[in-house]
Amino acid sequence: MNDDFVARVRAVVGSGHVLTGPGDTEPYVADWRGRYRGAALCVARPADTAEVAALVRLCAERRVPLVPQGGNTGVCGGAIPDGSGSALVLCLTRMNRIRNLDRHSDAITVDAGCTLAEVQRAAEEADRLFPMSLGSEGTCQIGGNIATNAGGTAVLRYGPMRDLVLGLEVVLADGTVWSGLRPLRKDNTGYALKHLFIGAEGTLGIITGATLKLFPAPRSAGTALLALPDLDAALEVFARLRSALGDRVTTAEILSESQLAAVLAHVPDTVRPLETRAPWYLLVEVTDTLATDALADMLEETLAGALEDGTAADAVIARSGAQAAALWKLRHSVSEANRKSGVVIGHDTAVPISQIPGFVARATAAVEAIRPDARVVAVGHIGDGNVHLVVILPEALRTSGEPLDPIIRAVNAAVLDISIELGGTISAEHGIGQSIRGQLAAFKGPVEMGLMQGIKRLFDPLGILNPGKVL
Amino acid sequence: MNDDFVARVRAVVGSGHVLTGPGDTEPYVADWRGRYRGAALCVARPADTAEVAALVRLCAERRVPLVPQGGNTGVCGGAIPDGSGSALVLCLTRMNRIRNLDRHSDAITVDAGCTLAEVQRAAEEADRLFPMSLGSEGTCQIGGNIATNAGGTAVLRYGPMRDLVLGLEVVLADGTVWSGLRPLRKDNTGYALKHLFIGAEGTLGIITGATLKLFPAPRSAGTALLALPDLDAALEVFARLRSALGDRVTTAEILSESQLAAVLAHVPDTVRPLETRAPWYLLVEVTDTLATDALADMLEETLAGALEDGTAADAVIARSGAQAAALWKLRHSVSEANRKSGVVIGHDTAVPISQIPGFVARATAAVEAIRPDARVVAVGHIGDGNVHLVVILPEALRTSGEPLDPIIRAVNAAVLDISIELGGTISAEHGIGQSIRGQLAAFKGPVEMGLMQGIKRLFDPLGILNPGKVL
Repeated sequence: MNDDFVARVRAVVGSGHVLTGPGDTEPYVADWRGRYRGAALCVARPADTAEVAALVRLCAERRVPLVPQGGNTGVCGGAIPDGSGSALVLCLTRMNRIRNLDRHSDAITVDAGCTLAEVQRAAEEADRLFPMSLGSEGTCQIGGNIATNAGGTAVLRYGPMRDLVLGLEVVLADGTVWSGLRPLRKDNTGYALKHLFIGAEGTLGIITGATLKLFPAPRSAGTALLALPDLDAALEVFARLRSALGDRVTTAEILSESQLAAVLAHVPDTVRPLETRAPWYLLVEVTDTLATDALADMLEETLAGALEDGTAADAVIARSGAQAAALWKLRHSVSEANRKSGVVIGHDTAVPISQIPGFVARATAAVEAIRPDARVVAVGHIGDGNVHLVVILPEALRTSGEPLDPIIRAVNAAVLDISIELGGTISAEHGIGQSIRGQLAAFKGPVEMGLMQGIKRLFDPLGILNPGKVL
Repeated sequence: MNDDFVARVRAVVGSGHVLTGPGDTEPYVADWRGRYRGAALCVARPADTAEVAALVRLCAERRVPLVPQGGNTGVCGGAIPDGSGSALVLCLTRMNRIRNLDRHSDAITVDAGCTLAEVQRAAEEADRLFPMSLGSEGTCQIGGNIATNAGGTAVLRYGPMRDLVLGLEVVLADGTVWSGLRPLRKDNTGYALKHLFIGAEGTLGIITGATLKLFPAPRSAGTALLALPDLDAALEVFARLRSALGDRVTTAEILSESQLAAVLAHVPDTVRPLETRAPWYLLVEVTDTLATDALADMLEETLAGALEDGTAADAVIARSGAQAAALWKLRHSVSEANRKSGVVIGHDTAVPISQIPGFVARATAAVEAIRPDARVVAVGHIGDGNVHLVVILPEALRTSGEPLDPIIRAVNAAVLDISIELGGTISAEHGIGQSIRGQLAAFKGPVEMGLMQGIKRLFDPLGILNPGKVL
């Protein structure tokens, strides 16, 4: 039976693009962090939308579950099949064409398998900006970015992936292709189907192409780091910057001193950016479409005001590209630093911006009450309310014989509960995947879960699209 | 039977808030332009979400169709009941509380019955901007703005209503309340239900409250009008402005000379803004969160460049608030002017921005071929690809005995077909309502229509929510 199925898959995509057997499929059935591992009947790498549609028809006919996968850079296990070995992993890597770039419409149409960096580059060559910016941008693919509604460091200014999508091409659960690739800025003709597929993590359809918004390229930029006594001061500085500079404020990233200390301790070629030590640091980037020195002056003026009235304890403005890169390196090194610091339990909550100080204080206290040996560091996107609380336990715990799972569950539950109590969410930008699927029902409540389940049944009546994810 | 139903409606909202009889219900069963007229079993004006939920439960129990209505300013008949007199019109006007404004989170939560102007004012009092701007803003209501995904003159910079909604409160077809009012900038927890309700014109649920994004208030602004030889020049100037000034470009409105002439001929206190006559005019507004003269200088520099190299034929920058208001009056007077010019057939298409010149040329020629006596004027939002082609026929036609409907249908069909051929849409910002419901299936195709119908059945299995609209 299975041999026959695989033979038919080979007939669709060509033998060279079908992988079977544990060795060959290994890179496609485990995630890069080693948290999730499954098994696959086979991995198929289609060349185009028609081949995707043929594979979906085949899977529907044979009731074979289908797990779409892009760059496999997710952190929630959304692209990893379960352990049964019954699924086809649909790898979109070969679909990496830039289909069209329309300068006047500020729109680019691409295959889902283009990497984010390839799209950024195509925009740049046309003197435009595609603003999404992620640590994994060299590897992650646009289809995955859309399926997970990816976030990153430029959401404050440009919004998450959802806001950057003009149109989609999607293969539905029966193999039908929905062509919604119009580069239109406005279209008020009924229900917003594209928004259902965005963030659905491949459970409602397979995204094969997208038309994305482009923006004018920035011609000047400024980068600064402030030392701050507390998170209220960080909110105050952020509010002043937004009020004065508006959407020139592209990025506002917060780091706790404990997070900075971890970076300095574990990552080579990092240096303490300010002599003043403070509980919190705010990394700010401002950009402008004008090539102007005025931007730096405006940034300086706002920071000077915050220093004068004591809101900020210290501040530095990068005077060169190298200095700016050194500041950014501190931010980009947090994952590496935390991994080297011990056993990491990460969180991706978001609360209303005004609730950030309360969330961090309460969640830190709750974690420390559960595990007095925990070090809590915080890093994230203050303008999105999305501060990642990262709990680091001693490395020795791994060999202590104490099981990790109950600790992780207790810590997760405490942090997520406090986020929910403060009007927040349990997943801000990473998605649900398989990682927090168990917590979704309690967060959403029966009304919303019922609607979501109804939509799932409507779009995927056979339940073959990425089963066991999200719902 | 009906008397009993109305008695139960009275028991929910109080006798003083139920209208029956043709005289009392008249303002609620016809639209302001006099295009659509229906009849109602009664009009109910609930005080809060709980009363809306009770009314929906009652309607579900009795299978009474329910037509939600806000300010009744729509142009597609979406809030007007059919002629059967079987429907309850649900008027949300009494629900006009500002529930909460959170400055740090830049979010405001309001009842659906607040007028757009009330929300703008509340934002202003908190030194923030709620950017949606419509001609009907004193009357139209937020619930209707959301249900129709309203557009307006600031979409270029801030997006349509869809982009301004953080969260929704919705009464579902069985009377259940879905509470999704979190003021979160990021929430990646499953399917984007709010986006289904936005733009669904009350066919999937009744929006009773919303949390909306606020923005930093602008502190400087500049307004200019350019005379242009053709639409290619308009696109070129627009592209240069965006490239140089980025999101400072809040508005870019195009008017044909024929449109300007109609305004000058029919609207008092309007004056020709430039000595130069040209086929096209572009009204540009730029704003900045900084209080700076630099903005005016930047605008002047870009316009000077366009004049020097002949892209623009002439230009004027407003030197005072009064001058800016005079330029804006030309734009805001188009509906009045066109109504006074003859029999008006309007369109609300959008095409990819790069296709605007081709669309206007082809659609104008097609209309003139159908009706040599037609005057075609064009006005709209060039940065959104949304140029309204307005066809004006001689007033004498009304009394000529020739039936209007076949003419309207022929003209509509020609214009919409050309929009579709160029990758455009048949409704950019006005919605579907009952006006172009008949054209939707041909535009969407069977795949998308099938998905939309499935969603409608899922959300409204009894078919009581605004029946006969959209689908």
